[in-house]
Amino acid sequence: VTRVAVIGAGSWGTAVAALAASHAEHEVVLWAREPTLAAAIDRSHENATYLPGIFLPASLRSTSELLEAARDAEVFVMGVPSHGFRPVLVALAPAIPVDAAIVSLCKGVEQETLQTMTQVVADVLPDHARGSIGVLTGPNLAREVAEGQPTAAVVAFTDEVVATRLQQIFMTATFRVYTNPDVVGCEIAGAAKNVIAIAAGIAAGLGYGDNTKATLITRGLAELARLGVALDGEPLTFSGLAGMGDLVATCTSEKSRNRTVGFQLGLGRTLDEIITEMKMVAEGVKSTSAIVAIANAAGVEMPIASAVAAVLDGSGRVDELVPALMLRRATAEHRPSV
Amino acid sequence: VTRVAVIGAGSWGTAVAALAASHAEHEVVLWAREPTLAAAIDRSHENATYLPGIFLPASLRSTSELLEAARDAEVFVMGVPSHGFRPVLVALAPAIPVDAAIVSLCKGVEQETLQTMTQVVADVLPDHARGSIGVLTGPNLAREVAEGQPTAAVVAFTDEVVATRLQQIFMTATFRVYTNPDVVGCEIAGAAKNVIAIAAGIAAGLGYGDNTKATLITRGLAELARLGVALDGEPLTFSGLAGMGDLVATCTSEKSRNRTVGFQLGLGRTLDEIITEMKMVAEGVKSTSAIVAIANAAGVEMPIASAVAAVLDGSGRVDELVPALMLRRATAEHRPSV
Repeated sequence: VTRVAVIGAGSWGTAVAALAASHAEHEVVLWAREPTLAAAIDRSHENATYLPGIFLPASLRSTSELLEAARDAEVFVMGVPSHGFRPVLVALAPAIPVDAAIVSLCKGVEQETLQTMTQVVADVLPDHARGSIGVLTGPNLAREVAEGQPTAAVVAFTDEVVATRLQQIFMTATFRVYTNPDVVGCEIAGAAKNVIAIAAGIAAGLGYGDNTKATLITRGLAELARLGVALDGEPLTFSGLAGMGDLVATCTSEKSRNRTVGFQLGLGRTLDEIITEMKMVAEGVKSTSAIVAIANAAGVEMPIASAVAAVLDGSGRVDELVPALMLRRATAEHRPSV
Repeated sequence: VTRVAVIGAGSWGTAVAALAASHAEHEVVLWAREPTLAAAIDRSHENATYLPGIFLPASLRSTSELLEAARDAEVFVMGVPSHGFRPVLVALAPAIPVDAAIVSLCKGVEQETLQTMTQVVADVLPDHARGSIGVLTGPNLAREVAEGQPTAAVVAFTDEVVATRLQQIFMTATFRVYTNPDVVGCEIAGAAKNVIAIAAGIAAGLGYGDNTKATLITRGLAELARLGVALDGEPLTFSGLAGMGDLVATCTSEKSRNRTVGFQLGLGRTLDEIITEMKMVAEGVKSTSAIVAIANAAGVEMPIASAVAAVLDGSGRVDELVPALMLRRATAEHRPSV
């Protein structure tokens, strides 16, 4: 029996907990911050707040006590948004064995430190083996995974043994998990794609069509890959599920929260209005300025991300974004200098 | 004054003719096979059959006489589907000067010969300079271009001087044209993406969601790039507008004909029923078996294209396609052998 602690009962944490709990040989405990939510999940086998209508495995337990969730766990799945990631991990740290695997589900960057989530883990747990710290990522809209839609995903760990073990833990008949040793590439792709999705949403909200959408996604992948490679990611990651796959899903799905934020901005609403109404966090809203700061530090140009950052901080207008990105001077598509 | 002959008055040929005719220094003649259509375009400045509701430039003339369209033309734009491409070109050949530029708009492969359209041109006109034979391609849904939606496109010619000249001919304030010397890569991408779009349409018609769609597009680009590189295309082409851009547009737009054919197949209709109802050609229907044959000859595996070919020739069932492609044995994402 392998005990798995899933920390965070949002839609994706809950869906991943259900995947792991679908195997009889796993004992899975889902930590929810709200005691009432934990009790409801435990009692009704449904997360009516974040994943309504999905029946969860009867064996999946839920608690709001961090250390109870952590007890005897060998695998820790961190389903906490970037702004709450570090404090939760600090509280959890004493209960994490040195040989545990730590899997981040969070596709964001810590605003204050500009660290990715695995860097935050390494910062909080400096003695933890780096090969046991990684991510689960890919084109994985939570609700579709929970409904059993055929989905492909990536577990990225530098230690291949750990990766293969986690592959087995999450894999089901409809959720196919591939391994990839490129942790940093997968994390940068996951965080930066949310920024591009905001841009794609803005374009859709303004009434731009499929040609514009496809061009933004294409150029978005190019800038996301430039950043990832500058930070020592592998080029292949960006053309795979964690890169292009997740980008396409997020930029074209009406279920994507980040695209939805952009879409509402494109319709002319303010960021404050939009965020107030959303039950869940859109990571891109918080990560955009951090991604741009990382890119600037690395000397990488990210025109789409910079334009989104300007819209979010109020210095740019949504109706300027698409013309500025689409109608630049025509040239050769692949210049030697780029 | 540059005279431009656009051969073929389907939606894309008409839209491209309108782009070129928007410049005062071009005289553009659009050839329509049907005399009544040519006369109607000439009279009403609208192609009510293929691009209804779009006002065409008053200077754009139309004729059903091939040699009248060709008279004094320096640029020939071939907007004819793959199955009619060769006979029209043979009829046109005596009127094409040796130094004319020939631009294919067709994203297909000739079924009998397995030749791309520029190869057909070179076959029909063996003495024509190869550097003056190329394509206009990219994520370019005709109706959106005609409506002035911001769009990016690629002209691919091996001769950079010719490419730059055509860039100026097609470019407008909302249609941005980039040059790319990789003719074969652009052509293979353009033809193969229609096959992947049929697969994406099938998945949507069967009710599969955005995770599946994004995974099919990601794997589709990988197999399309494998084929293109095996045929001496440039890897960068496939991550650019002619590759990923066009693939994403075609696989995610409800305006795409090839996706529509797949969608209807996914709903359970027969290919005969679907084709009978369509006014315009879906190139992927004809090109799929040719693409698979080209891949087999090159020793390149294309599982998605092969699955689509099986559905189209009746040897495979639509409800088997997605599970067969999505639920294969999990492994490392990027194997050294691939």
